Amino acid sequence: MSVIWSGEGPALLLALDRADGTPLGHQLQDQLRAAVRGGRLRAGERLPSSRRLSEELLVSRGMVVACYEQLIAEGYLVGSAGSGTRVAAGVREPAARSRPAGTTSPSATTTDRVEIDFEYGVPDLKSAPLPDWLWALHEAGRTAPTAVMGDERDAGALRLRQVVAAYHRRVRAGTADAEHAVIVSGFRQGLVLALSVLARSGVERVGLEDPGPREHDELVRRAGMHPVAVPVGGDGLDVDALYRSRARAVVVTPAHQCPTGVVLAPERRHALVAWAAEVDGTILEDDYDAEFRYDRQPVGCLQGLAHDRVLALGSLSKTLAPGIRLGWLLVPPALVGPVVREKLLTSRGAPALDQLALATLMESGRYDRHVRRMREVYRQRRDTLTGAVTEHAPGLRLVGLEAGCHALLELPEGVVEEEVVHSALRRAVRVYGLSRYRVDAPRAGEADVHPAMVIGFGNVNEERILRGVEVLGEVLSGTLP
Amino acid sequence: MSVIWSGEGPALLLALDRADGTPLGHQLQDQLRAAVRGGRLRAGERLPSSRRLSEELLVSRGMVVACYEQLIAEGYLVGSAGSGTRVAAGVREPAARSRPAGTTSPSATTTDRVEIDFEYGVPDLKSAPLPDWLWALHEAGRTAPTAVMGDERDAGALRLRQVVAAYHRRVRAGTADAEHAVIVSGFRQGLVLALSVLARSGVERVGLEDPGPREHDELVRRAGMHPVAVPVGGDGLDVDALYRSRARAVVVTPAHQCPTGVVLAPERRHALVAWAAEVDGTILEDDYDAEFRYDRQPVGCLQGLAHDRVLALGSLSKTLAPGIRLGWLLVPPALVGPVVREKLLTSRGAPALDQLALATLMESGRYDRHVRRMREVYRQRRDTLTGAVTEHAPGLRLVGLEAGCHALLELPEGVVEEEVVHSALRRAVRVYGLSRYRVDAPRAGEADVHPAMVIGFGNVNEERILRGVEVLGEVLSGTLP
Repeated sequence: MSVIWSGEGPALLLALDRADGTPLGHQLQDQLRAAVRGGRLRAGERLPSSRRLSEELLVSRGMVVACYEQLIAEGYLVGSAGSGTRVAAGVREPAARSRPAGTTSPSATTTDRVEIDFEYGVPDLKSAPLPDWLWALHEAGRTAPTAVMGDERDAGALRLRQVVAAYHRRVRAGTADAEHAVIVSGFRQGLVLALSVLARSGVERVGLEDPGPREHDELVRRAGMHPVAVPVGGDGLDVDALYRSRARAVVVTPAHQCPTGVVLAPERRHALVAWAAEVDGTILEDDYDAEFRYDRQPVGCLQGLAHDRVLALGSLSKTLAPGIRLGWLLVPPALVGPVVREKLLTSRGAPALDQLALATLMESGRYDRHVRRMREVYRQRRDTLTGAVTEHAPGLRLVGLEAGCHALLELPEGVVEEEVVHSALRRAVRVYGLSRYRVDAPRAGEADVHPAMVIGFGNVNEERILRGVEVLGEVLSGTLP
Repeated sequence: MSVIWSGEGPALLLALDRADGTPLGHQLQDQLRAAVRGGRLRAGERLPSSRRLSEELLVSRGMVVACYEQLIAEGYLVGSAGSGTRVAAGVREPAARSRPAGTTSPSATTTDRVEIDFEYGVPDLKSAPLPDWLWALHEAGRTAPTAVMGDERDAGALRLRQVVAAYHRRVRAGTADAEHAVIVSGFRQGLVLALSVLARSGVERVGLEDPGPREHDELVRRAGMHPVAVPVGGDGLDVDALYRSRARAVVVTPAHQCPTGVVLAPERRHALVAWAAEVDGTILEDDYDAEFRYDRQPVGCLQGLAHDRVLALGSLSKTLAPGIRLGWLLVPPALVGPVVREKLLTSRGAPALDQLALATLMESGRYDRHVRRMREVYRQRRDTLTGAVTEHAPGLRLVGLEAGCHALLELPEGVVEEEVVHSALRRAVRVYGLSRYRVDAPRAGEADVHPAMVIGFGNVNEERILRGVEVLGEVLSGTLP
């Protein structure tokens, strides 16, 4: 797909050498031919008007017109009254190149035939409040026209830091102020910044939940530290195992564990905070999904219990939309300086306009209204999922349903997760085995470890949930041992 | 400044314990008192309506009303017909905390009295095309309502990669295709990604221009490599010195050297490309200011000469506005995979809506029109600067004026840069000595090294340029040795 510039298109770089003996008109023809042949100008691209090009090159307009006419005659260009002079089709098709490694996800080859994808962690993209977001961008531009175009450089826009700190205090029972908030471009950047700071401060080992998102292992390694797996049971993270691991930092999802969906039990919350105090440790709290709880009382964040030991990571990817790419850190006072410095030295931060728009959106109540609306949407999807499992996969247990947009479907012992995944995929339904969240594949006979599927339903509507679970039920009845 | 939520404000996290013997009404009162005393709720913040809170907590509305009345009576809350129930002023003022280290720039203490700032590298913020940008955001949202809310994950939005590659081919005589383009959140992030990839590929030493931006030294060190200074003379980078440095990568500003403003001479361009081929080296081309040339023919980019050896870094911070925070890399084919991977593992990239808006802005011709308009603005500022120096500092030479938004004002030998900087600052004019761009302070008697000021005029209007240079002239006549 070629780029079709509106109007005249960007300036075309050509340089005539007046010291060279070659007449300027010939030089111009040669250079335009070379630009088309070499692919700098592609089929359909418009050339500058003869007036503009003559002004830029300090030659007569007649010379440019003559040159264009010559190249039209030679078939390099085509001219028309309405749309100016353009590059002709077919002169040079760029050679097909091999696709560079790493630019496609490993599963892209089968994407086109997946009809229902129970991917974890994707919110309902159709419900993303684009009109509200555009409104907020306008409001921010209207109220701070110069600020939104300048560089914000350090911890992020002050207004947004004030708003997210107040929001976190109110909704999550946090205790941070604006001076502890650092705006980042999403969870991933926030985690990488925090890990870098910990590594520079001398931390060597970082505890990661098992099961849990395994890409964090690599992030820890790239920061120069060792990831250590800490088991998660029905009460959440095993704090005794964390002590034994000799880690001095840990990444946890206390509100709704990823992927098992369990809540960190009250006594374990206190044990975890005590651990941090005892080993001079840092708790990285991924507070995702906390807004989407259904049948239980809200659980405050760990950050509110120990603001000097807990670094809370907030993100909009699940509440608003992943494309917004904004998030925040609420940082223990001693680490604020190092985190801000790390941010400055790796990227200058998020767009100023977007930051002020988010502050506007949150203060206006529109953010909150969206979250409340989505809570109902997801609650209905969850109920649909529960009903569909009862109907199509009777006897199987769904766990982690009290909150969030995913649940764990426990499979009978002996079922091989990969077989289920592949059979479902052949029927255009994508599901994900729990093993991909584990450090080690479950050993046969291990009492505690059942095969299971992680079912994300955030971006799957009710009709597709019904159909997808029906297929899954049929697949399971064919793969039961 | 407290946050004033519109409407009811975000949900307030409170949890009643029905197993506890304490009556629920008392629990609610206690928790609200604690939230106000502890600073979770601040003066002026609105509480949820009694209806909403009663629904959330599953208690009677009358209980919530009674609780609010009690706390109004106690002075924690205030109630009014129009604006609901709010937190009273004066109950708890957050204790003043010491400002965390690292969140202010070192020079912030004097910012309030600087009236004219000849800072390098800042474009005219008042001219930033905010209406065009908001238009482009809307257009992108209108044409791709779901795509702009999703996550783009790898190299960046395809449409934007197509557009920047075509732009670079046309305006800069580059040779990249969309598959070599990687969208980043600005120059800084792009440079850090590229340096990380080089370090992981085994590069140990990176050449940096001297004089040049010295913060790059630290970026190279943080990537685990050694920065080596390579002298810049009147023809640009000293390629012989680069050979001797044993570096296998180099960061250069060939179109308009930062900060001397010289153009890399043709024979040195070829020598630099030959160096890269000979040592298996990589050239990081910072192509800034290339759009703003005044009295000379355009100079094509190095990337167009050797696309397999040159990684070009493009940014909007100087052509559009630093607050946009978008940029791009055009990457040698062999490095595309590693660069994309590095990007994915450090941050998920730039906002999808902003990326498609930039593609829209560039294709529409509005970007180009803005660049052309700014070229005239900067040309006039440059002419004003030249005239002012002739008038107020006769005999001093300005160099690097053929392009860009800054120039070098050479000072007489023996003048001490720091004295000029301080004397000007006392008169509310901020200028910057060339020494801050040098690895070593100039040695007395060194033939080649004059004291000089780097004068950025991008964000200083003509009136201020005149006044600022007048002050500088007076300062210089007082500090001449």
